[in-house]
Amino acid sequence: MAANAAYPIIDADIHNEQEDRALLPYLPEPWRSRVAGSGIGYAMSGYWSPVGVMRKDALPPNGARAGSVPELIVEQLIEPFQVEAAVLTGVVYNISTTHDPDYAAAICSAYNDYVAHEWLGKHPSFKAAIAVSTLDPELAAREIDRLAGHPGFVEVIISSAARFPLGQRYYHPIYAACERAGLPLAVHPGAEGGGLSTAPTAAGYPSRYLEWHTNLSQMFMAHLVSFVCEGVFVKFPGLKLVLVEGGVAWLAPLLWRLDKNYKALRSTVPWLTRLPSEYVRDHCYLTTQPIEEPDNPQHLADLFNMMDAENMLLYSSDYPHWDFDAPDKILRKLKPEARRKVFYDNARQLYRLG
Amino acid sequence: MAANAAYPIIDADIHNEQEDRALLPYLPEPWRSRVAGSGIGYAMSGYWSPVGVMRKDALPPNGARAGSVPELIVEQLIEPFQVEAAVLTGVVYNISTTHDPDYAAAICSAYNDYVAHEWLGKHPSFKAAIAVSTLDPELAAREIDRLAGHPGFVEVIISSAARFPLGQRYYHPIYAACERAGLPLAVHPGAEGGGLSTAPTAAGYPSRYLEWHTNLSQMFMAHLVSFVCEGVFVKFPGLKLVLVEGGVAWLAPLLWRLDKNYKALRSTVPWLTRLPSEYVRDHCYLTTQPIEEPDNPQHLADLFNMMDAENMLLYSSDYPHWDFDAPDKILRKLKPEARRKVFYDNARQLYRLG
Repeated sequence: MAANAAYPIIDADIHNEQEDRALLPYLPEPWRSRVAGSGIGYAMSGYWSPVGVMRKDALPPNGARAGSVPELIVEQLIEPFQVEAAVLTGVVYNISTTHDPDYAAAICSAYNDYVAHEWLGKHPSFKAAIAVSTLDPELAAREIDRLAGHPGFVEVIISSAARFPLGQRYYHPIYAACERAGLPLAVHPGAEGGGLSTAPTAAGYPSRYLEWHTNLSQMFMAHLVSFVCEGVFVKFPGLKLVLVEGGVAWLAPLLWRLDKNYKALRSTVPWLTRLPSEYVRDHCYLTTQPIEEPDNPQHLADLFNMMDAENMLLYSSDYPHWDFDAPDKILRKLKPEARRKVFYDNARQLYRLG
Repeated sequence: MAANAAYPIIDADIHNEQEDRALLPYLPEPWRSRVAGSGIGYAMSGYWSPVGVMRKDALPPNGARAGSVPELIVEQLIEPFQVEAAVLTGVVYNISTTHDPDYAAAICSAYNDYVAHEWLGKHPSFKAAIAVSTLDPELAAREIDRLAGHPGFVEVIISSAARFPLGQRYYHPIYAACERAGLPLAVHPGAEGGGLSTAPTAAGYPSRYLEWHTNLSQMFMAHLVSFVCEGVFVKFPGLKLVLVEGGVAWLAPLLWRLDKNYKALRSTVPWLTRLPSEYVRDHCYLTTQPIEEPDNPQHLADLFNMMDAENMLLYSSDYPHWDFDAPDKILRKLKPEARRKVFYDNARQLYRLG
């Protein structure tokens, strides 16, 4: 079942979960009482998926949450697909759409300690993302500094649901801390339209999960334009950005538009000395799931030729979510060398593994 | 200078302008006094273009607004490029981001009467779009009914800047009226982020015009997903939709994502009986300006092969705006037959010209 017997796989997006009460031992008061009494209380969007959000077969027999039993992840994902490293991304980044910045920071810290103590040793493949909230970038930076150097944490993760575009100066303390720690920054969707975040599309609130999910790529387009134009990659030349679960096929058309506009309008972004697309190529990665699936698979291959796909893509499964991409089922048109980069080499280099 | 000597051109997006006071004879009180005292007062976004919004050479020597002198349009656009029909789109659709629905409706009616009396007879190429506001769809429908059958009006135009996605039921009276009148509906950007419209990107307000302009395509993505998923094309099978000035290269990747999601999530949109992309192919057109310009022009040609480009694109110049596309400078990779469709046949059929 392995994608290729010649090399193992690195999976850049696996959603470990836990019962809310699992964080209690790591939470100070008053947050321990809050979670004990009311649960974490994410501010999600409320859109409803008719097929559920979880793979039905990933629900543990004991009634626990999907993704919460390490042994089941090993059995369903790590072993059958020869996953050498699995980046546990959790779901706690979603806390950034709640309202209290101290609570959000406390939840993230508690989760990070919980993962360090209760996941990272459970299987040699397990690596994890440090969850931080964007509600107070200074607190987020402190959390990154606190955990920098821990060998199990290979990136920092924030929510793509936010109050304004992620390139803006308000957020820069987070990026400075990522650069100090030598950790890539991952951006992940999930709570778009929930709590204090923006509407989930440029045109406001759509009616259904089908529309909400289809439109999630827009959040990544807007953030990416912001990262580049605000000069984040000029100010933090060591920063690497991983756009997780936002789709990939939109990248080339967006960069054509951005490069064209830059040529005419660059006087307002004088810190940029190269084309926007060049910064993206040098600093950005996109995870593959959910991969676009045109009727004609050659179309996706053609689109990959219009971007530096083989060097920018990182395979991800999104286990245990409903739209999981098995490594042997996707990207079949990639040439063997490009496939090896996407499924293994790019992530190994980015995350400094092995 | 013609794009092709073998056939004339139809230009689907020319921005005629006028001094605000030109509408006074067509306005009832109290709106006449309002415009006389304060001007129209569009609620625009406030983003600033460092190169201006108008072509410098399109500014009339008498100090009038660019686009306000019919003879100059004929001299700079109609004659040199053999434009057989020019769809005058104006700028008045931008009124939809102001707050008073009665005022917005009155401005649109006054503008439509002004165009009928003072533009449509000025040159045989001139056709016009009926401007309506989305602030009161019933009033908009009444305006469309009022002008239906006028031979000079070939479409209805609304702003893409809106309070929520354009497919939703609130707007349907407009689409019913378009279908009754046999007129395509055009959607045009400009006021995104202004007045009571949504933020101009899914991630909120970017900092600069460069970002604002690059991100405008997102508004069209969100609206298009909404049009399809809300069943507008099922409810109004005669409706044709023209996405004006929103870019084109994003279409195929978006539809891959939408079709894929539809296959899994269609139970919440039971009125759809075909793939979303099929409704788009049958009902939608995109105007070409501002056309994406990859370094390798073959990339755009390849992307056109992934959509039904030759049947869905309508040439537009966007005269007199800064990023005007001359017909002899763009889409050079299109084969002659496809080129003829994009520059002439598609628009002639859609607008029932000639």
